[in-house]
Amino acid sequence: MKSRINSIKQAISKKNLDALIITNPANVSYATAFTGDDSWALITARAIYLITDSRYTEQAAGECPLCRIIERKEPITKSTAALLNKLKSAKTICIEKSTSLTTYSALKKLLDKKLKTVTNTIEPLRVIKDATEIAAIKQAARIAAMALDNTLKYIKPGTTENQLAGALDFEIRKLGARNSFETCVAFGPNASRPHHQPGPRKLKNNDTILIDFGVRYKNYCSDITRCFTIGKQNRLYKKVYETVRQAHDAAIEQIKDGVEIKHVDAAARNVIEKSDFPPYGHGTGHGLGIEVHEQPIIAAKSKGKLKAGMVITIEPGIYIPGKLGVRLEDDILVTKTGHKILSPKTKEIQL
Amino acid sequence: MKSRINSIKQAISKKNLDALIITNPANVSYATAFTGDDSWALITARAIYLITDSRYTEQAAGECPLCRIIERKEPITKSTAALLNKLKSAKTICIEKSTSLTTYSALKKLLDKKLKTVTNTIEPLRVIKDATEIAAIKQAARIAAMALDNTLKYIKPGTTENQLAGALDFEIRKLGARNSFETCVAFGPNASRPHHQPGPRKLKNNDTILIDFGVRYKNYCSDITRCFTIGKQNRLYKKVYETVRQAHDAAIEQIKDGVEIKHVDAAARNVIEKSDFPPYGHGTGHGLGIEVHEQPIIAAKSKGKLKAGMVITIEPGIYIPGKLGVRLEDDILVTKTGHKILSPKTKEIQL
Repeated sequence: MKSRINSIKQAISKKNLDALIITNPANVSYATAFTGDDSWALITARAIYLITDSRYTEQAAGECPLCRIIERKEPITKSTAALLNKLKSAKTICIEKSTSLTTYSALKKLLDKKLKTVTNTIEPLRVIKDATEIAAIKQAARIAAMALDNTLKYIKPGTTENQLAGALDFEIRKLGARNSFETCVAFGPNASRPHHQPGPRKLKNNDTILIDFGVRYKNYCSDITRCFTIGKQNRLYKKVYETVRQAHDAAIEQIKDGVEIKHVDAAARNVIEKSDFPPYGHGTGHGLGIEVHEQPIIAAKSKGKLKAGMVITIEPGIYIPGKLGVRLEDDILVTKTGHKILSPKTKEIQL
Repeated sequence: MKSRINSIKQAISKKNLDALIITNPANVSYATAFTGDDSWALITARAIYLITDSRYTEQAAGECPLCRIIERKEPITKSTAALLNKLKSAKTICIEKSTSLTTYSALKKLLDKKLKTVTNTIEPLRVIKDATEIAAIKQAARIAAMALDNTLKYIKPGTTENQLAGALDFEIRKLGARNSFETCVAFGPNASRPHHQPGPRKLKNNDTILIDFGVRYKNYCSDITRCFTIGKQNRLYKKVYETVRQAHDAAIEQIKDGVEIKHVDAAARNVIEKSDFPPYGHGTGHGLGIEVHEQPIIAAKSKGKLKAGMVITIEPGIYIPGKLGVRLEDDILVTKTGHKILSPKTKEIQL
């Protein structure tokens, strides 16, 4: 945390900011190690403050030994303004531009000082993961794979999407972790909706399953997608699965420090374009860290290059409404010489 | 949905708005019936548009028969601006003030027209629930109570907070619903943190349990808290529990159409003030609907009165760091003549 705080202070002094108010929860977490909600961080050259409320004071004291904890009894804008109005060294105050207009105007009214907005102060630091962060993501991916393996026994005709999602989440909890986002379980044609919410649909004798889920461990996320079939596999599904697998592998093969991000996206899309199947409407992947979706976005219009220390997902898919959906997703660390897949292989269903 | 859309259109014409962009996900849901993410609603005198992306097009077509679905292939600001620039009848555009500064500036640049902000356009409509909404919340509370009853068998010495939270979430899924927020299970002194995250703490022979959780059913939330003891109950805990129960009952007794909201808050706080125990730092309750926390807030500084059709929680607590925490929470419908508790009684642990 100390070296991270130094990087943050450097980033702030480079932009000539006296004081930065961080309101984005993931950025608050990154700057303070706090994992609760409804709290802001205030960074000055001298100190990092965490402005929280009585629900979180005890937790914050444990999680954030390097911060000054301010327990607010008033709206967060009021307490933050009061603190800032007292800080003589802070003349111009900056706040993250991701803040709502409501909050910004409320704060502006209460401050005796100038209030400006800034973007991309903390996010660029979060893109490159340090060893502790990589270890946490790797463990989040390992727990996800273990939980899925432990869940396979529940997969049989008659099980509902809801039950299977619940069973998987339970296995994640048993392993001491929790979901990084709401588990998606889709049977048969339901999988053509990339963000399907599990429902009462029952698994049939010959059927297909898509599971997209992730684990949050030590506040870092994994995000993986697996597809299975039970019973007799139909020819169309087999061909679609094989095409997605090739697209997935082709993108991963490209991953290396210095490679243009759009080339990674193109590698997956080219495979599907050459097939008779429709292109997917979503990106090929995204950064992974405190948030399940963060920079960089792996898409056709992405600018910039991969850098060692980034952790990204690769998740191409093929969706045929009314028929099927297949998506395969893994979590990958970019390295100097290539890449390392952090998400372990998972078992196939044995029926 | 038709009468709801009429109310929305009336609210907009009352404020003399040509077109309103809704970005708050719960408001989008309320105006369109859409339950996915990353989508906006645009309301004009003529139509309601849902601006979404390919992940959700199929789902939106099913959920929102009264909307025109726009599948965007560009950033949401760009697609929305393109649509608005083409709509001749819309001269001045309004956007919800809860929108981020980033989004607001991006949209402003792309629009040929004036862009203003508005607050509290959809929220006041959401405060009073119609019969369908009340039925959904009631069912969400019933499922929560059933799931908790089904979970009691897992409660025994050695169980971890994580396992118990996972078991409860699994029971919710088995009943065809999902969590309305992340389940809080806290054993012993952990319960003194009102927003404790379940961890590896094991249940002891003589121990206490706090469970704060809720169910989302048909997109409406319940939110209930129960406290249990196993083994020998110590005298302090018993006294605290009894005090919280009295505070909880005293607040509920006040609930009726026309009553000042702050009086409900005071009723609970007065009971605790008269005891030797410390006051709680959070509110006494909150509105419940598409969001687990919505208007009205039940707190000491709350203005306004309860109205028939509001659904609120009542959740006083006593927290003694290092020792214990007790909170009791139910979901209550405000009626003309009084109130109706929507959350069923739950069983006690039988060991």
